[in-house]
Amino acid sequence: MGRGYHVAIVGATGAVGQELLGILDERKFPVSQLSLLASARSVGRTLTFGGEELAVHELQESSFAGVDFALFSVSSSVSKAMAPAAVRAGAIVIDDSSAFRMDQQVPLVVTEVNPHALHRHQGIIAHPNCSTIPLVMVLKPIHRRARVHRVVVATYQSVSGYGARAIRELDQQTRALIAGQPPIVDVLPHQIAFNCLPHIDAFGALGYTGEEWKILRETHKILEDASIRLSATTVRVPVYRCHSEAVNVETARKLTAEEARELLAAAPGVAVVDDPEKAEYPMPITAAGRDEVFVGRIREDPSHDSALNLWLVSDNLRKGAALNMVQILELLTTGQA
Amino acid sequence: MGRGYHVAIVGATGAVGQELLGILDERKFPVSQLSLLASARSVGRTLTFGGEELAVHELQESSFAGVDFALFSVSSSVSKAMAPAAVRAGAIVIDDSSAFRMDQQVPLVVTEVNPHALHRHQGIIAHPNCSTIPLVMVLKPIHRRARVHRVVVATYQSVSGYGARAIRELDQQTRALIAGQPPIVDVLPHQIAFNCLPHIDAFGALGYTGEEWKILRETHKILEDASIRLSATTVRVPVYRCHSEAVNVETARKLTAEEARELLAAAPGVAVVDDPEKAEYPMPITAAGRDEVFVGRIREDPSHDSALNLWLVSDNLRKGAALNMVQILELLTTGQA
Repeated sequence: MGRGYHVAIVGATGAVGQELLGILDERKFPVSQLSLLASARSVGRTLTFGGEELAVHELQESSFAGVDFALFSVSSSVSKAMAPAAVRAGAIVIDDSSAFRMDQQVPLVVTEVNPHALHRHQGIIAHPNCSTIPLVMVLKPIHRRARVHRVVVATYQSVSGYGARAIRELDQQTRALIAGQPPIVDVLPHQIAFNCLPHIDAFGALGYTGEEWKILRETHKILEDASIRLSATTVRVPVYRCHSEAVNVETARKLTAEEARELLAAAPGVAVVDDPEKAEYPMPITAAGRDEVFVGRIREDPSHDSALNLWLVSDNLRKGAALNMVQILELLTTGQA
Repeated sequence: MGRGYHVAIVGATGAVGQELLGILDERKFPVSQLSLLASARSVGRTLTFGGEELAVHELQESSFAGVDFALFSVSSSVSKAMAPAAVRAGAIVIDDSSAFRMDQQVPLVVTEVNPHALHRHQGIIAHPNCSTIPLVMVLKPIHRRARVHRVVVATYQSVSGYGARAIRELDQQTRALIAGQPPIVDVLPHQIAFNCLPHIDAFGALGYTGEEWKILRETHKILEDASIRLSATTVRVPVYRCHSEAVNVETARKLTAEEARELLAAAPGVAVVDDPEKAEYPMPITAAGRDEVFVGRIREDPSHDSALNLWLVSDNLRKGAALNMVQILELLTTGQA
């Protein structure tokens, strides 16, 4: 480490925390000092950054002295409690939780979609839900060209969206079942190995989950258009990494599949993988570890005069989390925002 | 075995064939003689029915002498080649493949939905696709009450829908990956363990797969209403048994979630499991081995003035296959059809 910024990672031992370390290094973000913060439970652990072993420290209100940027990937309640302390200490907070996303004072940013919103930050910048990010990256160019009226989305979300404990749970349940043992259910509400759970986040209004409402509300805020109608069914599937989404998009102006394919191929951060004859389409195993949001199965919808069906897959720990957070850092520090 | 019917199972060693044996026994269908037929490869194997070991014989045109009912669960091409021989020999064929489903002379029957269609059979009765069956069982009461305009469905289909070889492939790939070995891809187009494949059946018109077109066309035929608009995205997930579907249904008359719940609770063969507060909703692991189509997550759709979202799960080897075939047999032999 040398010239650069003092960065704190809050939740450094979590699934997103570990990914942040890798991406900061990989993209050569100028880090002069790195503070790894986590709950008291993780004190004593070390993590590697740029070849150096760094100790994990306990997150406290006093942890942020001299910190330029604090990247939070912890629960909403921890973010709510600790982000203000970081801001008071002079840090800019980029928060991965839902704590501040719908706060009118807080920009909610996907770097390819609404980087201009960063200008008006007051110390805290919120990072959207990992299902919302790939969706708005695909909707943005369609909305601009053809005006999105309504979206119906069904998700296929990996366990890493819940965090490192759910990754271990899928692994342990799979090992148990393969060995003919009963699986232990501890982290997710039911067995996830060889199962599907139509339950992500707590149930709320109208029987929709928090995750389902987040996709709607965050899409409105990021695309700056509350006229878009949207409903979601969010489902956890036994996949370690990457979220997939089956998306039906109704538009004011009809787009052909070919027009949509061209539009999406030109969208920043989006890659079209759509050659059914060769069995080429986005999949979790091929999107894992990649930066792009992959979109395929782009089809005109025979059930509507002006709608498309498409299938997108994105690495929920990269563009859905750590990558977008680091890209926000890059925009802030290169003066592009 | 004693008084009853001479039944032939064509494809007896497959996933559906084995389930047929269990269900015929369980429901005490009166079988006087059972012929187990399969490809030459399976000759020499024996299967158990009602405590007796029965040899598997090679399927030939001459296999159907004296057979009353021939239950076919083999590929379309084998059904096309052999079902006419069974009919010529005097058997009634119930065929699980797509070979005859759209043939105007052939009834396509879900016993709870359109049993009356059985009357006009001419020797062959087609059994619908395992994703179509649960969908029409749920759509039928909604259509009757509120008129279904449009359906958008995303499926989460288990490997057993492809057959016994895909079950083994998921098992072997999972064991390999857990052991740190590369998975072998042989049966499905890509790795299915810890992955999602938006590809079921061959790709066809407009970029939709055969499976996606089947859901539309079979729904029209079974509900006897080609005005219903429908589009599907069908996806294979790493689940052994049971297909799940996220379904958005637009209706002419608005139904509240409560009205839909009551309507579905009263529908034959359908069970409502919908208590989010207790984390109760349909799941593959709880629907496996069960006869009912389970429906939950029943919600009014905030993105439309008159639409519902719901989540259904059904055992694709039982109601999606063997159970409905045996129920057709029961209707035929008890004179209810």
